Amino acid sequence: MTFAQSLTAAARLTEATLDGILSERSISGEAPEPQAGRLIAAMRHAVFGGGKRVRPLLVIESAALFGLPPQDAAHTAAALELVHCYSLAHDDLPAMDNDELRRGQPTVWKAYDEWTAILAGDGLLTLAFEVLGRAETHSDPAVRVALISALARASGAAGMVGGQALDLMADKRGDPASPTIDYIRRLQAMKTGALLVFACEAGAILGRATDAERRALADFGTALGFAFQIADDLLDAEGDAATVGKAVAKDAAANKATLVSLMGIQKARAMLVETEATANAALNIFGSRADILREAARFVVDRKS
Amino acid sequence: MTFAQSLTAAARLTEATLDGILSERSISGEAPEPQAGRLIAAMRHAVFGGGKRVRPLLVIESAALFGLPPQDAAHTAAALELVHCYSLAHDDLPAMDNDELRRGQPTVWKAYDEWTAILAGDGLLTLAFEVLGRAETHSDPAVRVALISALARASGAAGMVGGQALDLMADKRGDPASPTIDYIRRLQAMKTGALLVFACEAGAILGRATDAERRALADFGTALGFAFQIADDLLDAEGDAATVGKAVAKDAAANKATLVSLMGIQKARAMLVETEATANAALNIFGSRADILREAARFVVDRKS
Repeated sequence: MTFAQSLTAAARLTEATLDGILSERSISGEAPEPQAGRLIAAMRHAVFGGGKRVRPLLVIESAALFGLPPQDAAHTAAALELVHCYSLAHDDLPAMDNDELRRGQPTVWKAYDEWTAILAGDGLLTLAFEVLGRAETHSDPAVRVALISALARASGAAGMVGGQALDLMADKRGDPASPTIDYIRRLQAMKTGALLVFACEAGAILGRATDAERRALADFGTALGFAFQIADDLLDAEGDAATVGKAVAKDAAANKATLVSLMGIQKARAMLVETEATANAALNIFGSRADILREAARFVVDRKS
Repeated sequence: MTFAQSLTAAARLTEATLDGILSERSISGEAPEPQAGRLIAAMRHAVFGGGKRVRPLLVIESAALFGLPPQDAAHTAAALELVHCYSLAHDDLPAMDNDELRRGQPTVWKAYDEWTAILAGDGLLTLAFEVLGRAETHSDPAVRVALISALARASGAAGMVGGQALDLMADKRGDPASPTIDYIRRLQAMKTGALLVFACEAGAILGRATDAERRALADFGTALGFAFQIADDLLDAEGDAATVGKAVAKDAAANKATLVSLMGIQKARAMLVETEATANAALNIFGSRADILREAARFVVDRKS
């Protein structure tokens, strides 16, 4: 399978799993109130907007290193995607990033309204933990608890939510007044990196990896997260809205300090190359079995949208 | 111990547990960014606002039926309170109920700002599941997963979040145009009932109760939730803001259909008495061991704020 085929297969499996999880019957049971359908529709809007499903791919491929078939990682991949999609629904809100467009589609609050977007996000986050608690995710409750604990740490105040708070502190309150490259790196490691690290570690948890294997996957995820952010900043600085699928040059317009604005495009590109090498080196202990993960790093570095 | 002493003891234990959980060091580790403290302060504002801690009491007292000391239920009680407090922080937002005052204090968005209140709520919800995943909550991972699954169902789109969505559908979109008593009962069973049912069932899960015992506690929680809502509507219709600690007569001013507006105060009072009897009857299998839970029902029915 080529990398493109792996990504498509992971996306299909994840979306089929999400489709089952997000059915009205699965959520509300046999006889829901007719009014309940609107919240579920908003939750589906947040999830089925054409995302690339990179995080699910990482879960599925890191689990494959330990012999797990994709089906056995699908619920974990879906739960992680629920968290990612909730965070986008909330981040896009007028009170936060105030984005009206995401992947070429209206954002949840724009398609519905603000309160629906807040509740849809809350519902998706809660559902992620419900899914991880199910026996379908893994037969061993201890593995399910390990996934829940790791995802909660990655997505909470010490991870994604905390990173978004630091980002908005800088944007809206100018605190710190002059963010350094190092500060932005730490902020981004929380905001986007932690969930990518979880994606890679999830395979190790599902596959009962050794500590060394789990650490290798975490190191890969950390480097991947950093590469992801540099690439994102470069897309904002250089991309055009039609290709990227959302507004670009927002950072410059907002006079926002980013890795690219602080380092310049040349240095940022060099750091991206270096970071990809770091990511690949972390995978050495897996040999060629990790080639799809190396291609995932390539994909993140090279992406045009 | 009198009921008032039990409630005070449960509140103290829960707040001490929450204080540890919500310390900056516990959340962000040894060397957090200085800016990270603001989000944690907002999370603490949401939690330490002087709540009565009725849900924690129910967890602790239902667990006591199975011989568990309060300390062994404290982390579950704290996790549930985190979910309750996140829901208040989000419900108070301008896009939702637009409340500026809660328990006589400024709401989170009023004390901070909207984006901070959204993220503080997200952080609290996520933290609740992290806490339930910890070994301190229960030594058996299967019990921890059972708590996580039950709390996620109670607080998600089929429970609390779904109930809030139905409530706002009626308020903001006039759908359904004429809510019936039965519709409002089902809505409130989701919005406020589900978390009270979880509070009572949590003791059964922690205590490895029989199915019959768990069902009895769930039935008690269902009746208690209904009583809670009737009492709340009566307080809004009859209370004064100084005693209740938040704005009153909001329902009438908003021309909102409530149990009280549809039934009248007399009938609502009669239904409250009947519902308390239903709650008490559910506890029969526990005999006098459940007296504190009976007093909890009394407290809910009789409360003045």
